[in-house]
Amino acid sequence: MNVQDIGEQGLLAIVKRFCPSEVVGDDGAIITAKSDGSLVVTTDMLVDEVHFSDRTTSASDVGWRATAANLSDIAAMGASPLGITVALGLTGDTPVSWVEEFYRGISECLEPFNTPIIGGDVCQSKVRCVSITAFGQVNSQYAIRRNTAQAGNAIMVTGVHGDSRGGLELLLKPELGESLTEAQRDCLIQAHQRPIPRLDAIAILQEMLPDGVVVAGMDSSDGLADAVVQICQASQIGARIEKHQIPISDALKLLVSPSQALDWALYGGEDFQLVFSLPLPLAEELAEKLGGGAAVVGMTSPDSQILLVDQTQPQTDTILVLNKGFKHF
Amino acid sequence: MNVQDIGEQGLLAIVKRFCPSEVVGDDGAIITAKSDGSLVVTTDMLVDEVHFSDRTTSASDVGWRATAANLSDIAAMGASPLGITVALGLTGDTPVSWVEEFYRGISECLEPFNTPIIGGDVCQSKVRCVSITAFGQVNSQYAIRRNTAQAGNAIMVTGVHGDSRGGLELLLKPELGESLTEAQRDCLIQAHQRPIPRLDAIAILQEMLPDGVVVAGMDSSDGLADAVVQICQASQIGARIEKHQIPISDALKLLVSPSQALDWALYGGEDFQLVFSLPLPLAEELAEKLGGGAAVVGMTSPDSQILLVDQTQPQTDTILVLNKGFKHF
Repeated sequence: MNVQDIGEQGLLAIVKRFCPSEVVGDDGAIITAKSDGSLVVTTDMLVDEVHFSDRTTSASDVGWRATAANLSDIAAMGASPLGITVALGLTGDTPVSWVEEFYRGISECLEPFNTPIIGGDVCQSKVRCVSITAFGQVNSQYAIRRNTAQAGNAIMVTGVHGDSRGGLELLLKPELGESLTEAQRDCLIQAHQRPIPRLDAIAILQEMLPDGVVVAGMDSSDGLADAVVQICQASQIGARIEKHQIPISDALKLLVSPSQALDWALYGGEDFQLVFSLPLPLAEELAEKLGGGAAVVGMTSPDSQILLVDQTQPQTDTILVLNKGFKHF
Repeated sequence: MNVQDIGEQGLLAIVKRFCPSEVVGDDGAIITAKSDGSLVVTTDMLVDEVHFSDRTTSASDVGWRATAANLSDIAAMGASPLGITVALGLTGDTPVSWVEEFYRGISECLEPFNTPIIGGDVCQSKVRCVSITAFGQVNSQYAIRRNTAQAGNAIMVTGVHGDSRGGLELLLKPELGESLTEAQRDCLIQAHQRPIPRLDAIAILQEMLPDGVVVAGMDSSDGLADAVVQICQASQIGARIEKHQIPISDALKLLVSPSQALDWALYGGEDFQLVFSLPLPLAEELAEKLGGGAAVVGMTSPDSQILLVDQTQPQTDTILVLNKGFKHF
């Protein structure tokens, strides 16, 4: 059965199953925010055959990933999520089961964070497309921005990098995974299909953050290198990232060569970890509390150079660059 | 020059011209809401060749209409707007001038309401598509819902109906407008191309609303009949709408027959007026303050019948129905 068989009312009945009853039925949804918070808003659009494809991505994974990307942006601002809206353009021949699985993936991603779908739109389209907008709230003192990093602070990451790109490779070429355990293969594939937004790290950071300390940061959705460069350029400082401190999973090390793993960690993207700049003692404390690959990867510097360095081979310094290849027209 | 010639960075540079500088450059935008308000959220998706077309709609009108539809939903909830996000999917051969005009249309619609674009996304797509999400805030006592209407109250509208559909007809068949003045033709075409969200009516309503009076309502984007039926069904009451009290502009009366004008007023849609149910004396006071076609059009009733009545011809009562034809797959 396709969406053209059940029409708009049939589709809305499906959508409503995934929304709290009190937010459905009006022109807009009403939610209550805490009184002392600023509102954080982020939005993403995904299009069939550009950002996903039935050949490589299940409907539930499309829903999960689109949701995770938005919640990751909320986390990257230091905020906690209040809700999301989902606008969905569908071709008439889209199977109804695709729509149900898509919303199921969204709900599964939202569930651990008690975050509701608070509104949306379903419309006809010549190509399947999804636009998710997420809202969160943050106390001003905890807001994380890119342009507030200071020289002499640590740069830390909340977890391993490169696994998402490794998982994609494993999906494309399963034979590469023969030397990995099943758990290792699952770990890489989950990193690609079901990335987990690091809202947990924000909660832990805010618990331990002394008054007056400003944390700069963003997420690593476009790669670790891109995040470091964006933060440094926005803050008009430089950085030295220590090659051997970049956390790379054992699974990825088994899958590909060290240089390939490093390249994917820096430029693979879609790991959806958080990249922070904050005083070194705090960074070390946070990394220890988070565990699971969280690590200090370098320091900011007062110059404008953003370098990948290897303390054992000083002549091999390379310049980190923005991820130019990720989105294009 | 097309968007594929300037790439994502070029596009973002255009988008940034239309956004406040303080909200650009992070993973999300931060805005401050008043401390005593609930948050209202609404979202709409529009797709090329389904909701708009280069053949009939300029880029600036696409931007204006998409924005107006969302602000109208904010008004329909009794809220005032805080900002919007704009997600835009573009084909590579979209002219850069289309993108600039599109954002210009959005900005022109937002300008009278001091409402910023606070975020967005631009991505590649096989078909042009737009998703706008609007946020507003409302004090709980002023929130307007569909399901709170009570029997024995008035139903009022904030202005004339049918002009948007009339304007579309005039664009499709200019020869029909020969008996109209230029001002009348402009009025109909503006109603179609540049509808004005009735946020002004919300401000006036809230100024005069006594404590404890609940106003039910929604906008008439899918037609006046649809709005009346939705309010009545959600509130489990009926209504009598008096045919001769439905405000129809002189221009529309000149353009088409009385029965055609009435049909468009009821089912044409896209007038983006507000339809309220509230105590009769307040409804009459509000209609008088608003002027410009605002009128009490009928009364709610304790039964479940939703009728269009003509007091001079009681045998001609007809049943009002939901607008089923407007969106389909």
